[in-house]
Amino acid sequence: MTGAARLDPSVAGGEGARSLTAGDVARLVGGTLAGDGAVTVTGVAPLDRAGESDVSFLAAARYAPLLERSRAAVVLVSPDLADAAAAAAVRARVVVDRPHEALLAVLPALYAPPPRTPGVHHTAVIGTGARLGSDVTVGPYAVIGDGASLGDRAWVDAHCVVGAGVSVGEDARLYPGVTLYAGAVVGRRVILHSGVRVASDGFGYVYRDGAHQKLPHVGRCVVEDDVEVGANTTLDRGSIDDTVIGAGTKIDNLVHVAHNVRVGRLCLIMAQVGIAGSVRVEDGCVLAGQVGIAGHHTIGKGARLAAQAGVFGDIPPGETWSGYPARPHRVALRAQAALFKLPSLIRGIERLLGERGA
Amino acid sequence: MTGAARLDPSVAGGEGARSLTAGDVARLVGGTLAGDGAVTVTGVAPLDRAGESDVSFLAAARYAPLLERSRAAVVLVSPDLADAAAAAAVRARVVVDRPHEALLAVLPALYAPPPRTPGVHHTAVIGTGARLGSDVTVGPYAVIGDGASLGDRAWVDAHCVVGAGVSVGEDARLYPGVTLYAGAVVGRRVILHSGVRVASDGFGYVYRDGAHQKLPHVGRCVVEDDVEVGANTTLDRGSIDDTVIGAGTKIDNLVHVAHNVRVGRLCLIMAQVGIAGSVRVEDGCVLAGQVGIAGHHTIGKGARLAAQAGVFGDIPPGETWSGYPARPHRVALRAQAALFKLPSLIRGIERLLGERGA
Amino acid sequence: MTGAARLDPSVAGGEGARSLTAGDVARLVGGTLAGDGAVTVTGVAPLDRAGESDVSFLAAARYAPLLERSRAAVVLVSPDLADAAAAAAVRARVVVDRPHEALLAVLPALYAPPPRTPGVHHTAVIGTGARLGSDVTVGPYAVIGDGASLGDRAWVDAHCVVGAGVSVGEDARLYPGVTLYAGAVVGRRVILHSGVRVASDGFGYVYRDGAHQKLPHVGRCVVEDDVEVGANTTLDRGSIDDTVIGAGTKIDNLVHVAHNVRVGRLCLIMAQVGIAGSVRVEDGCVLAGQVGIAGHHTIGKGARLAAQAGVFGDIPPGETWSGYPARPHRVALRAQAALFKLPSLIRGIERLLGERGA
Repeated sequence: MTGAARLDPSVAGGEGARSLTAGDVARLVGGTLAGDGAVTVTGVAPLDRAGESDVSFLAAARYAPLLERSRAAVVLVSPDLADAAAAAAVRARVVVDRPHEALLAVLPALYAPPPRTPGVHHTAVIGTGARLGSDVTVGPYAVIGDGASLGDRAWVDAHCVVGAGVSVGEDARLYPGVTLYAGAVVGRRVILHSGVRVASDGFGYVYRDGAHQKLPHVGRCVVEDDVEVGANTTLDRGSIDDTVIGAGTKIDNLVHVAHNVRVGRLCLIMAQVGIAGSVRVEDGCVLAGQVGIAGHHTIGKGARLAAQAGVFGDIPPGETWSGYPARPHRVALRAQAALFKLPSLIRGIERLLGERGA
Repeated sequence: MTGAARLDPSVAGGEGARSLTAGDVARLVGGTLAGDGAVTVTGVAPLDRAGESDVSFLAAARYAPLLERSRAAVVLVSPDLADAAAAAAVRARVVVDRPHEALLAVLPALYAPPPRTPGVHHTAVIGTGARLGSDVTVGPYAVIGDGASLGDRAWVDAHCVVGAGVSVGEDARLYPGVTLYAGAVVGRRVILHSGVRVASDGFGYVYRDGAHQKLPHVGRCVVEDDVEVGANTTLDRGSIDDTVIGAGTKIDNLVHVAHNVRVGRLCLIMAQVGIAGSVRVEDGCVLAGQVGIAGHHTIGKGARLAAQAGVFGDIPPGETWSGYPARPHRVALRAQAALFKLPSLIRGIERLLGERGA
Repeated sequence: MTGAARLDPSVAGGEGARSLTAGDVARLVGGTLAGDGAVTVTGVAPLDRAGESDVSFLAAARYAPLLERSRAAVVLVSPDLADAAAAAAVRARVVVDRPHEALLAVLPALYAPPPRTPGVHHTAVIGTGARLGSDVTVGPYAVIGDGASLGDRAWVDAHCVVGAGVSVGEDARLYPGVTLYAGAVVGRRVILHSGVRVASDGFGYVYRDGAHQKLPHVGRCVVEDDVEVGANTTLDRGSIDDTVIGAGTKIDNLVHVAHNVRVGRLCLIMAQVGIAGSVRVEDGCVLAGQVGIAGHHTIGKGARLAAQAGVFGDIPPGETWSGYPARPHRVALRAQAALFKLPSLIRGIERLLGERGA
């Protein structure tokens, strides 16, 4: 079922194929056209899979050999590689800085997102006192709790559960099967992918009378405007105070955010990261995949954590740390380099120390 | 949407604001009242966010400066810090050991959990021969399989799927969207958060005839009384025998428990832990976040594993191990300390060995 | 509720107890019968929990002492241990290579999977132009999108959401609560466990105008024939091209596969693995639990990655790598051994270097 990776716009849910000329593409991306401006494209594909009606891009010099064989009608290319594209006889080239980023302008023009149909499915359960804004979409079998509110144009897809009193902001989008516990607050234009859980109880117990007694969690979980949260990620509510995800932050799949965490604005948190209770992640941080941060620490503004880093202390702003336990990246690299030299030195060391009676 | 973290009891689903006097609080927690016993509170908040009708607590000496600025009406404080609270002119203080733990008594008095409404939603699908106890709650669009049974007062929320023949114990609570495969056994007072999967097939294949042939898994997954399981956690069924989570154990979000695992009683398993097949975790163990345990090993009674530990052997009872591969924590710390010294020593070592012709 | 681990076939959803004689078992597994061929069994259990109508197996010499106490009626045993089983007076033995694997033949004969009832539940929502093959099963509250197609005998369980235009192959099985976004392509005989998300948006943003601008993802996510995917695993769609999971590959729970990843055929990917964007995992690779692979690398054919490995470069075909950062396993082991020797040598080294004025 793989076959050619020919992307059919109807698969992406579009209303039908759209087409652009090479000239259109150049205007869209603010680039310079070279070659035949009338060539038309209806899709986007990588160089090695492009067909004669696709636009592609040259990502880096090492992919230039792919140009020779490519059938792409139009190729976006950075200025330093414009000659390579011309030499490869690509029918139309658009010279622009950062060709991959230029796709932001091209993709939406070729692939229309499926039109959202406002309306509340007849099977949706709407609670007492729930307030639905104008032009909302509520999908089949969604459950909107008592006193909840959906902002204008919010889209709550099939099987979502929006808890009592929960507010969902304008233009927010909840994919199928999202659960917002009572205590969730979801901002405007927030996107929550399938299986996200917001405001679930934090992990809090006190050992007393021979058992782990559950500490009620009565804080909220606030997801600010323009946040996007990946599939099956879990964001716990605060124990007393709130858990907060700052505006514009983007969180990937299968991430865990514990109770009382404060994530700042415009952070990037990659898949399977785990952030323990009461951690502060300041604005603009980047956490790579599978990072773990122990409780109560602060990740300073603009810091970057390498994949699989294990953080057990505060991270200074603007720095890059890596490893377990996390250290400044250069320190970690030096330690690793030394570690891999060590086996060949150990015997000599042991002999030396033996001779010295050390 | 963050604004003040003023917790509105209605957000937590309560029936309305409740209030307590400082005297009430002192009695509830078994502490000693100092100051104005008639002061009333309606909520709980941390010192730095408390308003004039909140009760707060002083967690440790280093937070004492927050007392000066706090508007909290009542502050729970440990005996050694009682004078600091008096000096800060907090209107009423309650002197008690372990103030944070004392919240167990205060939170429920201020925040009533939403009353559970017994009843089976008219959209719930109830299978042939399913037995529902008295006063159960079954939410919208829940599916109860043939021959399943729900104990008295069990609460199965919206979109849950309870498989054929599955038993759910008295007072258990399943949050929205939980799946119990046939083979799941859920005890009394068990709490399963949204997206939990119980008794999914274990990961078992045998390579034969050029393919990975699926090994049927016919064991059960038994979740004993008083267990709580966090959001999106997966607990696989046994291949022949059972997977068991022992009574009173608490499991966090996004945890993986593989087939044939036996977790003892009263364990604490933090987020994103992965426990491979046939591992034995004995009573009272504590596994910190993102720990991984390779198959067939035993974690001895009361052992503790530090965050991100990678366990490839048995762990003796009562010990604390850390790192990858896991070692006793002190051994791991010494090795790390040595590792970070090593880069500065390497050149000298190489020179020494060179001179010695080693 | 644990009690004896007596597996009741009705719990596994079977039609009732089936029984086999020891002679039947021998024929099924192609082994040699010794002892009483007329002895009957109705279930499978491990040696230490078997009852008088169970068949069990002896996994390894170290478990031979369990034979003495076992009540199993029939024991599968490898040739080198056949005498031990006879000496332990087990009533019937079946001598066969790889006894555990032999269960493939025995389990299905004793435990009939619950018969699947073809039919579309009256509560299922079927979209415009959706095509349902013959003998499909669509469970309660499932939602099949416009233009989607289900192959013959496909089984889409309760609460699944199959997006617009999505195709699900013949004999595929979706457990409850699976979400297939538009862009998902699911092959024949694919098994997707509860909570799986296919073709969710990849994690792609470009920082522009002071915000992380979302890069539309218009590729597909193709799950080829005979793939099995564990509970709560997430498989993202490609950004332009496809994400592909190759035929016959088996993926465990809570795994993350990012956009544009290509996983080959017949791979085994264990729980909580994270594979970053544009990684290529070639045919026949084995990734143990919690492995992380950084973006754009290639894992060569037949390579094996040890649990928790952190991969930051290409892995040669056929090799086994481990650790963070991943190295060939032998190299990693030597480095670890040296590391744990180091603390006892450090002081001597420092003294030597001090004396030398190094």
